[in-house]
Amino acid sequence: MQQEAKRLLQTGKTIAFVPTMGYFHEGHLALMREGRKHGDALIISIFVNPTQFGPGEDFQGYPRDVNRDMSLAESVGVDVIFAPEAKAMYDKAYQTHIDLEMLPRYLCGPSRPGHFRGVATVVTKLFNIVKPHVAIFGKKDYQQLLIIQRMVRDLRLDIKIVGVPIVREADGLAMSSRNNYLSENERRSALSLFQSLQQAQETVAQGIRNARELIRGASELIRSYPYTKIDYVTVCDPETLEDVDRVDGPTLMALAVWVGKTRLIDNTILKPSNYSGSKFQGSRFKVRER
Amino acid sequence: MQQEAKRLLQTGKTIAFVPTMGYFHEGHLALMREGRKHGDALIISIFVNPTQFGPGEDFQGYPRDVNRDMSLAESVGVDVIFAPEAKAMYDKAYQTHIDLEMLPRYLCGPSRPGHFRGVATVVTKLFNIVKPHVAIFGKKDYQQLLIIQRMVRDLRLDIKIVGVPIVREADGLAMSSRNNYLSENERRSALSLFQSLQQAQETVAQGIRNARELIRGASELIRSYPYTKIDYVTVCDPETLEDVDRVDGPTLMALAVWVGKTRLIDNTILKPSNYSGSKFQGSRFKVRER
Repeated sequence: MQQEAKRLLQTGKTIAFVPTMGYFHEGHLALMREGRKHGDALIISIFVNPTQFGPGEDFQGYPRDVNRDMSLAESVGVDVIFAPEAKAMYDKAYQTHIDLEMLPRYLCGPSRPGHFRGVATVVTKLFNIVKPHVAIFGKKDYQQLLIIQRMVRDLRLDIKIVGVPIVREADGLAMSSRNNYLSENERRSALSLFQSLQQAQETVAQGIRNARELIRGASELIRSYPYTKIDYVTVCDPETLEDVDRVDGPTLMALAVWVGKTRLIDNTILKPSNYSGSKFQGSRFKVRER
Repeated sequence: MQQEAKRLLQTGKTIAFVPTMGYFHEGHLALMREGRKHGDALIISIFVNPTQFGPGEDFQGYPRDVNRDMSLAESVGVDVIFAPEAKAMYDKAYQTHIDLEMLPRYLCGPSRPGHFRGVATVVTKLFNIVKPHVAIFGKKDYQQLLIIQRMVRDLRLDIKIVGVPIVREADGLAMSSRNNYLSENERRSALSLFQSLQQAQETVAQGIRNARELIRGASELIRSYPYTKIDYVTVCDPETLEDVDRVDGPTLMALAVWVGKTRLIDNTILKPSNYSGSKFQGSRFKVRER
């Protein structure tokens, strides 16, 4: 792959890259279509990275179907699929890890110790192998996107990171390879994630800005469905992920919920109705109150 | 620097890179002369990296003379000097670190917590900025060289790492910017590092292979000089840095000694006299004993 990437670069090609764990759904295809816009060559990787799964997590059971993935990738114009074996990525003496100090402390970090270390490390490795100019990540894994963006800035990786909006099923459930685990009954309960975010959006539109109130409303809605167990429901700063008390500008609402034995995540940016423009506009140009 | 590196790469140039903390001596110039052989363009960096100094270490006092460094660099054919400010390398929200699990546990690691994290991280950043094909490091910082080599392999950084032999003063003292700290009397005691390594080489040549005996001999020699305080004297595997009991093949002898308030390091590869060829030859092809 490194040789192929160098060959592409030597012919002056721009490389766009979509790292994935495979088992493609429309969300992955949206990333690839976005990637198609950014590069002369579109490279994807399929690698279920063992180091980002904790003990007891679903590494073994994670759904895989490389043949189906290959034909789906081809259908959206992928040029190269990089699908390494785990032993080609990590040898016996492997010992290098990349950690971020702050961002992994929030949201999914506490429930998944080591997860973001595994993600940051494997993504850096994939970047060094594939040598992209642009890399595409989904906003469903909002915290992951933020961590990659911060790491790229911190390590001076010369790569543009593009985030792509969440792709949802017709009823609103965020697409995920893990939806595959859900029974029919659990599938109905899984909708509570989206519905609680939607309810929070409406509540904010009605002028309620208290974070605790929004979290309580979401939690109650989720708990009203069977099979659900909340991991976290958070209203926080969309850049630092620190909790906020009030929704005074674009604010991240993120949640993780167990539905049966499946852990699902979803998120949205809450925007107060009188708010317009970038996050910082409000604080930089204080509007005189009349 | 990133723009300049890309410009060089686009014109098909090979980049050789020597990262330094400045205050050049012949050791640095040897790295640059080696670099000159490996690249069409020779780039060096001068950056006294704050994150690799611990609290109480000599970050503030570390000797600096950028003007002298620039003319010395020019004299050996350096094309580009990259000398960033610390605030250009680390912004306020900076939070990404690279750690190795095993190699920093040995030698200088325990006495300098965080040092190799700082080194691994800044070297990766410099690599991502300078985009070299080849990077040159001195063997005086043997552990650092080993850590960089392992990190490059682990993260799939597409860079060839070249190690350059230790450059010594006429009397054997390994060149170091920190030698500058030594008083005349301390300078005499500093020679004990080299002499103890030399004595160990001779002892091994005489057929003594017991690591403990070699360490005791070196320690006694060092302690016989005033102002010295041993941090460590180790005889270990040159790849894993794990202690060995016997010198049965090329074996690293490494030491760190305080001379007054100055911490100095030195090392050598001990080779048993009947040994010839690569490290593994002895074990792979057992020679029949007659």
